[in-house]
Amino acid sequence: MKYCFGVDIGGTTVKMGLFEAEGAIVDKWEITTDISDEGSAILPNVAASVGKKIEEHQIDKKDIIGIGVGVPAPVTSDGVVNGSANLGWKYKEVRRELEELSGLKAVIGNDANVAALGEMWKGGGAGEKNMIMVTLGTGVGGGIIIDGKILVGANGAGGEIGHICVNYDETDHCGCGNCGCLEQYASATGIVKLAKKKLGQEMRTTILNKEDVTAKDVFDAVKAGDEVADEIAVEFGKYLGYGLANLAAVCNPSVFVIGGGVSKAGEVLIPYIQKPYLERAFFADKQVKFVLAELGNDAGICGAAKLVMDD
Amino acid sequence: MKYCFGVDIGGTTVKMGLFEAEGAIVDKWEITTDISDEGSAILPNVAASVGKKIEEHQIDKKDIIGIGVGVPAPVTSDGVVNGSANLGWKYKEVRRELEELSGLKAVIGNDANVAALGEMWKGGGAGEKNMIMVTLGTGVGGGIIIDGKILVGANGAGGEIGHICVNYDETDHCGCGNCGCLEQYASATGIVKLAKKKLGQEMRTTILNKEDVTAKDVFDAVKAGDEVADEIAVEFGKYLGYGLANLAAVCNPSVFVIGGGVSKAGEVLIPYIQKPYLERAFFADKQVKFVLAELGNDAGICGAAKLVMDD
Repeated sequence: MKYCFGVDIGGTTVKMGLFEAEGAIVDKWEITTDISDEGSAILPNVAASVGKKIEEHQIDKKDIIGIGVGVPAPVTSDGVVNGSANLGWKYKEVRRELEELSGLKAVIGNDANVAALGEMWKGGGAGEKNMIMVTLGTGVGGGIIIDGKILVGANGAGGEIGHICVNYDETDHCGCGNCGCLEQYASATGIVKLAKKKLGQEMRTTILNKEDVTAKDVFDAVKAGDEVADEIAVEFGKYLGYGLANLAAVCNPSVFVIGGGVSKAGEVLIPYIQKPYLERAFFADKQVKFVLAELGNDAGICGAAKLVMDD
Repeated sequence: MKYCFGVDIGGTTVKMGLFEAEGAIVDKWEITTDISDEGSAILPNVAASVGKKIEEHQIDKKDIIGIGVGVPAPVTSDGVVNGSANLGWKYKEVRRELEELSGLKAVIGNDANVAALGEMWKGGGAGEKNMIMVTLGTGVGGGIIIDGKILVGANGAGGEIGHICVNYDETDHCGCGNCGCLEQYASATGIVKLAKKKLGQEMRTTILNKEDVTAKDVFDAVKAGDEVADEIAVEFGKYLGYGLANLAAVCNPSVFVIGGGVSKAGEVLIPYIQKPYLERAFFADKQVKFVLAELGNDAGICGAAKLVMDD
């Protein structure tokens, strides 16, 4: 039996998993992310935790394929990070450092990309080789899988789908400095903004409260048959569906996997996205499936494990 | 010495080349494309022409790596075409048929994608591994190279960059049925349309003639200092630059290679595209280079040769 580790480094905790090569999760645990001193202890802590688990499970080190890691930053194809605000890292040769610390092969990827790989391996995209994962959270992130491999790009910034422009008339600025980014409409914060704008102009009765509305409230109200909430969801879906139509013309995926906090609303989301998508999609891309992500917080460790196994 | 053939099948002629594996072109010739009887003679004619050249150059068949082919249609990763209007083909297992006809390994790709691979190998993108080629011809085509490989997509329709939407307010229809496609503004025909619209409203003196204006006329007038032509080029560049900014957020290339008939205008094009690109590009994509294609009509045969060599 061969094994590998999947590691998902976040700004607060490091999620870790020990996997059998066939895919079963043997063990799953977390350690705290120590971001003091420019995050200098993060990789030593990961290596130490891996070492402890190898002992605990009495695994022969030669049966371990390696450690896959997702980090919240662009990562070059040789495992270098040029700075991660969440972890306090500046330039860091993550692959080299972790290999030296652990004595194991390490493969490093961007966390959103790695989560996409996890969903392709064991989640909503299982069985597919050309997949786009869209993560609707505080922002809009994504991971693009082409022929089974992460689209990394020239400097690790592939799949930044939250920053494609979907509204050239927008005058409000996105966090990135541009105007009209997908993230301004399809993230949890974007949906709140759409909702507040709508509720500010609205005369009809609605169960939504302008002063205190969340993305979850909007989709709960949609499920309860609220007409105003439905129109907010239509607007959200229009921007997202149009954006995904452009992505499909570029990447020609077979499936979109929708994840992140907003996706907890469930299947109700899909038609709001798919209808405008079909209005704008290139004819060769009309058959693309839309599914929800399935792995939740485990997507990162699963994708990280897959990353090192595929290397 | 190892050899391979690069074949670029068009609706009128088939361009063919015999290459040394190191890249030198040994021989280059054309045959007529016989599109009668649903194009049934095209592959037999290609195989016969290859066989004749092997004899002529007295090459041992075991020294031939194979035949790379570009065709004007989407091609799946196993070399199947589901129809090509230009060639008269319906469903056709191109790879299998050509291998049976020739007794050589064959690898098939979409012609625009294959031309992009050619430009990466020996042209404007030489030395790069993440490249987007934009072909500004009658339409707008493209080829996306990720980590040295063509982005093929789930059913061979990757890189259809002429059909990303760059103007959500457009009411005129593109040939594909959508409104606001990049092709409507950045192709030779798109530029003529922009020019006619502008000239119809224009009071200033210009050397351009509304009744009889071509894309070449516009850029010739730009070079002559014509103010109206400059404004047409600004509009063309805005749509193209904005579209490429979206492409960069998805693919994070290191270089854009601009090819096709419109690119014959030369270096004068680049600043018109690059300025709006920089206004809209995600910060990680600001350094992307813009260059002109270098191989002209040879891009297809070069890329086809590279395709079979890399397989």
